[in-house]
Amino acid sequence: MGRDLGSRDAGFLALNREVLERLAEIANASGTHVAVPIPGSGTFAVEAMLTTLVPRTGKVLLLVNGVRGQRAKRICLVAGRRIAVHETREEAPPDLEALDGALRADPTITHVFVVHCETASGILNPVAEIADVVATHGRRLLIDAASAFGALPLDAASTTFDAVAAASDRCLEGVPGLGFVICREASLAQARGNAASLALDLHDQWQHLATTGRYRFASLTQVIAALHQALGELRAEGGPPGRNRRYAQNCKVLIEGMRELGFRPLLPERLQSPILVAFRMPKAGKFLFHDFCDKLEARGYVIDPGTHGLYGCFHIGCIGRLDAGHMRGAVSAVAEVLAELGISSLGSAA
Amino acid sequence: MGRDLGSRDAGFLALNREVLERLAEIANASGTHVAVPIPGSGTFAVEAMLTTLVPRTGKVLLLVNGVRGQRAKRICLVAGRRIAVHETREEAPPDLEALDGALRADPTITHVFVVHCETASGILNPVAEIADVVATHGRRLLIDAASAFGALPLDAASTTFDAVAAASDRCLEGVPGLGFVICREASLAQARGNAASLALDLHDQWQHLATTGRYRFASLTQVIAALHQALGELRAEGGPPGRNRRYAQNCKVLIEGMRELGFRPLLPERLQSPILVAFRMPKAGKFLFHDFCDKLEARGYVIDPGTHGLYGCFHIGCIGRLDAGHMRGAVSAVAEVLAELGISSLGSAA
Repeated sequence: MGRDLGSRDAGFLALNREVLERLAEIANASGTHVAVPIPGSGTFAVEAMLTTLVPRTGKVLLLVNGVRGQRAKRICLVAGRRIAVHETREEAPPDLEALDGALRADPTITHVFVVHCETASGILNPVAEIADVVATHGRRLLIDAASAFGALPLDAASTTFDAVAAASDRCLEGVPGLGFVICREASLAQARGNAASLALDLHDQWQHLATTGRYRFASLTQVIAALHQALGELRAEGGPPGRNRRYAQNCKVLIEGMRELGFRPLLPERLQSPILVAFRMPKAGKFLFHDFCDKLEARGYVIDPGTHGLYGCFHIGCIGRLDAGHMRGAVSAVAEVLAELGISSLGSAA
Repeated sequence: MGRDLGSRDAGFLALNREVLERLAEIANASGTHVAVPIPGSGTFAVEAMLTTLVPRTGKVLLLVNGVRGQRAKRICLVAGRRIAVHETREEAPPDLEALDGALRADPTITHVFVVHCETASGILNPVAEIADVVATHGRRLLIDAASAFGALPLDAASTTFDAVAAASDRCLEGVPGLGFVICREASLAQARGNAASLALDLHDQWQHLATTGRYRFASLTQVIAALHQALGELRAEGGPPGRNRRYAQNCKVLIEGMRELGFRPLLPERLQSPILVAFRMPKAGKFLFHDFCDKLEARGYVIDPGTHGLYGCFHIGCIGRLDAGHMRGAVSAVAEVLAELGISSLGSAA
């Protein structure tokens, strides 16, 4: 980030091209898809995806089981896109038979939207199976992978999708600031004029980059340079499989340690992503969550003090420059904080 | 940027509040306006301003004399906002009598939009005089100050405006990534539901920040921390007046030096902002612009290799961490490059 690069400088433009090519490669989508950057965050990329790729005459079936799914619903309603919603509880993945039935019953549904990994619960949605159902019906799949991209497997050769939206931070371990959407080129080519926004028009951004090599507006040189470095580190770690292994190990250490202290994860193992873990809020009277967070922070462990209305849960992340040693440290800190709060055992109350 | 801050951490949230308060202070707008951040760039902020503050039943008179004005026009057309356009040549400011006449003739115009300083030409538009005309007619002024904010004077106490859009880079000398709009609070409060975008809805962002202190989506912690540092440096330089003095000196050194070499600025002195200078492209046959840029870059001076369709001009910026010494160095490098290209004199050909 400390390098001073001109946004129209040939060196920067080459670095930017390399970043975009590498992003498509991560989803094994180089031949079929193009990565289109959208400054902002993962949500900016999700809005750009939904409003550029779903035509104004289209209809999206939203698979909702958490905050990111709810947000996609809001995006569609605000933008005036027609929707149908298949909603399940935060600890339940979408029902594949219900999906099949919904697509069979409503031929006006053009697109299906799913969140790869939900932010608050950490649930892993079965994207590959969903993709098969959607493809069988000849509809198009749009994926919000903001919490998953770069670590959870996503292979365009075996999972049919039209687009996946994500961002420079989270599992890619860059700094926040750059969203992107990896779009099937043939679909993007049909999307001219769909967006009701200039800033979030993927087609316009794509065409401008393709013809000039440059960003339409100010480009985020420092954020993109940091992402270039982060993608090199991802490659050095063995790509998404290597990163997934480290996160899975982090997650395992965290869950085992927290279980020993009496905490219970929200999700069963088969639905648990290695990205973050939601734990049920202990019912012990001495467990005051904000105190708990503050005392953890004093020990150098910052967890999200928000609960996101998630059925009385809190969550702890497993991603970033963290390894099993850090996670063991976090568990030890939790044990110390419980002792300081005068809680000897969470017992069955947790 | 190297500090690792949690996006929901109390320390970061305090730093963010300080940044937003300081941005409103720079426009002397603390009591009346609020600064609302929009990740992206200045153009994202401009789109958020136009589409959140102009209701769908509103109509904007766009004062256009360059690329940023043209872009605002595109934003309005794509978003379906009704417009009227007063367009002047790139080296001509808006005509105040024509503005007065247009507002008199069309009472359905609710807003007027102007660019404080145009990007390609460097023209300084008379924002204060325009604001007086707009206020006389009881209409609302929206300003794109992406190229000007932090250096050119803008005082909410003497210049009546509803909103001004800008970004973390340019004259604020932060890194690119965060746009913002300083909005009259009373107007913003009326803007609920105007936007057809969730990401670019200033009202929603404002309400969420006001009630929770947090960003709705991922927040750009590194970019915001860098902006905090940059705002401290601006204050240390004496605020916008101090920065304006340095840029004006840079501009003077550049223009005088380039004139001596035979280059002619596009604009007369009274229209020339201290932000960047457009020079007429020399007509000498040996002057190949791309060669010129490459040879300057080899000497450590990067200028924009684009001409932005600006009447056969190129431009050189005066902003950033540069002082008169750097500008003298740039002029010397230009002289060397001319000699290397075998151009002894641009004479009257320039």
